[in-house]
Amino acid sequence: MGAAAERAEEENEEWAGVTPDAARRLVSAAVEAFAERGYHATTTRDIAGRAGMSPAALYIHYKTKEELLYRISGIGHEKALRIMGAAAEAEGSATERLRDAVRTFARWHAEHHTTARVIQYELQALGAEHYTEITGLRRRTDRLLRQIIQDGADSGEFRADDVPGTTLAVLSLCVDVARWFTADGPRTPDEVGTLYADLVLRMVGAPADRTPEGQAG
Amino acid sequence: MGAAAERAEEENEEWAGVTPDAARRLVSAAVEAFAERGYHATTTRDIAGRAGMSPAALYIHYKTKEELLYRISGIGHEKALRIMGAAAEAEGSATERLRDAVRTFARWHAEHHTTARVIQYELQALGAEHYTEITGLRRRTDRLLRQIIQDGADSGEFRADDVPGTTLAVLSLCVDVARWFTADGPRTPDEVGTLYADLVLRMVGAPADRTPEGQAG
Repeated sequence: MGAAAERAEEENEEWAGVTPDAARRLVSAAVEAFAERGYHATTTRDIAGRAGMSPAALYIHYKTKEELLYRISGIGHEKALRIMGAAAEAEGSATERLRDAVRTFARWHAEHHTTARVIQYELQALGAEHYTEITGLRRRTDRLLRQIIQDGADSGEFRADDVPGTTLAVLSLCVDVARWFTADGPRTPDEVGTLYADLVLRMVGAPADRTPEGQAG
Repeated sequence: MGAAAERAEEENEEWAGVTPDAARRLVSAAVEAFAERGYHATTTRDIAGRAGMSPAALYIHYKTKEELLYRISGIGHEKALRIMGAAAEAEGSATERLRDAVRTFARWHAEHHTTARVIQYELQALGAEHYTEITGLRRRTDRLLRQIIQDGADSGEFRADDVPGTTLAVLSLCVDVARWFTADGPRTPDEVGTLYADLVLRMVGAPADRTPEGQAG
């Protein structure tokens, strides 16, 4: 399978919940346009054009450009929350759960770096009500990670003097993967996830002998 | 001194090398405009307006919008390189140098978060020649940090199995401060620098007893 076909397949998977097909094509086109030119420089005409549709056809599915951004942000942030939730609620020690959380969260930001950039950098462009809703999803994701780190501190697995500060740094590390990751770089999304999980376990002071490569995978 | 006056003073310091005064006002106005609306959605007319000047007056100092972005990127990236260079070339152990590098680099990204966002997120908007020059500055900054981490690995101070990967993560952590930092948040730029230095020293496996609070500062 060629790179273009792979990308098309990934997009299909990424936006699978968006129906009908025309709405899905518009979401996909909007992500590409926002990532390339920024939200404010993109018009609904640009997006319709990329999706091979007329502005009037776009309007059937999305009344405004902001509605498209809100849809994209919602899907992206809900996915991030599900990833963190699955790791937080899994069986196992805090070390195992933190490894799993960082590995999957960093990997997602690499695999979906275009979408992740849009939802991170264009957050301020959301309308007030949508902004409140989306930042609510973010806070829930943050809390899940903070709880894993707190559990490890409480059980003595981690040496984390500043749990909120450590949580902030771990989230930040994973989110910024979206900025620097490129598909033609030296590391696959999987490799980034494994590297970052190892680095974060050291950051929280999880003893090396308790965290061999691949323990939780 | 009120918040607005403090901000004005910071801006003055940040762009002190830009002369004459009109050119400095334009650079400062461009940073604000790019940060708010994105590079592509900003016109030279917007920038001139913010600086209280006519488009013709802007044109005396900068022929294009890209020239302004290039000037801003150059100043920002040269400052980042100087910060990293000062830490790398200082006397002291790799632990002390890494603490100093991370503390000052993270602090700079907090203090100058608006500028840092623009130079990080709008890199792709530079013309080909300017892009090559700016990415050259970035590579020099990266190499300085990598050398500190390599020195620590060689001397046995650090346990860094993957020096390039660790370098990437440390830079990424510091750069992303620009995304999440707000002046009204719970941490000062100085506190962010100290927290991040501690977390990074753990990440490279610098033993805790060798890295007490404030050792290098």
